[in-house]
Amino acid sequence: MLSKNQIKLITRLKQKKYRQQEGFFVVEGVKTINELLQSNLALHALYTTETFNIDAKQEILISETDLKRISFLTTPNKALAIFKIPNPKPIDKNGLIVVLDAIRDPGNLGTIIRLCDWFGIKDLVCSKETVDCFNPKVIQATMGSITRVNISYVDVVDFLNEVESPVFGAFMEGENVYSKQLPEKGVLVMGNEANGVSKDVEAIISEKISIPRFGDLQATESLNVATATAILLSEFKRR
Amino acid sequence: MLSKNQIKLITRLKQKKYRQQEGFFVVEGVKTINELLQSNLALHALYTTETFNIDAKQEILISETDLKRISFLTTPNKALAIFKIPNPKPIDKNGLIVVLDAIRDPGNLGTIIRLCDWFGIKDLVCSKETVDCFNPKVIQATMGSITRVNISYVDVVDFLNEVESPVFGAFMEGENVYSKQLPEKGVLVMGNEANGVSKDVEAIISEKISIPRFGDLQATESLNVATATAILLSEFKRR
Repeated sequence: MLSKNQIKLITRLKQKKYRQQEGFFVVEGVKTINELLQSNLALHALYTTETFNIDAKQEILISETDLKRISFLTTPNKALAIFKIPNPKPIDKNGLIVVLDAIRDPGNLGTIIRLCDWFGIKDLVCSKETVDCFNPKVIQATMGSITRVNISYVDVVDFLNEVESPVFGAFMEGENVYSKQLPEKGVLVMGNEANGVSKDVEAIISEKISIPRFGDLQATESLNVATATAILLSEFKRR
Repeated sequence: MLSKNQIKLITRLKQKKYRQQEGFFVVEGVKTINELLQSNLALHALYTTETFNIDAKQEILISETDLKRISFLTTPNKALAIFKIPNPKPIDKNGLIVVLDAIRDPGNLGTIIRLCDWFGIKDLVCSKETVDCFNPKVIQATMGSITRVNISYVDVVDFLNEVESPVFGAFMEGENVYSKQLPEKGVLVMGNEANGVSKDVEAIISEKISIPRFGDLQATESLNVATATAILLSEFKRR
């Protein structure tokens, strides 16, 4: 049985302001919950229709009907867990860092977090205008990668001003990335879905790069930001 | 005013079976509709809250309330159009061709169509199990690229057996794509989101390729199929 207070907490966690106030976020689905249970994230509560056999008092068996009541999904997937939001670790400035300038779409942020995990990027730095990484749609799209990438929300202009390694940015009219020598250490800035990199941030970028378009003049005017990030990270990492 | 028959037709076009029966598909949003109007697709009807000033009897001004009634979106965007489904053109076997083996997610297919457009891929060949490219969610994700890529639904095994150029396929355990010499002509096969390339298709693939993972052993076990396609097309096209 679910108490009114439990339902209220879960519903509130849909909203960023309450996630920040309560310090918790929601994860759904057996596979992703299992990935998070294996990480060093602290479990607060696990509501499930089938036992996970975890050694934890936090496991609460509920009915399908109750799961439907609390789930954010149209087709709930057996379990919903509440985890504690971890404190971000200090940013390691000695690697390749991805910076997001106002990415708004949860699916795009989730895909980029998964890409960072794949390409061994330890730090993802987001502007304060970027969608919250503990948004349930972001968590869903990361497929567990949220536990392996250190995500910090900062003032991007201040951050870039402090960084010593070269700052690359993705632009429509930049240098052809295929003909650039890319360093192992550096920063890659990706801009907003509709407006690209903001003017303030653009002023600090030392190298503007582009993915060339091979289609004809009528071809699509841009790539989705997550697919562009995929191609650029591949270019940084390939040897 | 919308007639009952008009509403019925639009509602039916949500389903693949009726799209195939009627030969029409639905597009929403001013920007995408404008892209399609500029293509050689035939407009059947345009329902809009603001005139497009097109020289066409097909334009029907409707109220916001009526648009809400017929729209497939939670936030309708000023217009909904019905276009005729074009006949696919013959596949040009002399270029780089992308083959999709049972891609199920409409967002993934839409993103891959947009990628084909960007990279100048003329032909996208889909297995019959692949989601329909005239599904409204696919159309939305293509951002207009649907008009510039020739999409054919075929028996993939038969198609690959007839092709003369080398057939590459994306696998978890393939050769490192960064160290391969990739040809200008060829076929790239991408498999299903959960199960990868099917056994029948795998048997015809001459070269298995992989994108190396740079994250540590705990890192995500796979890339999303659309981001993997982005990286592989970039590898085929970069010189």
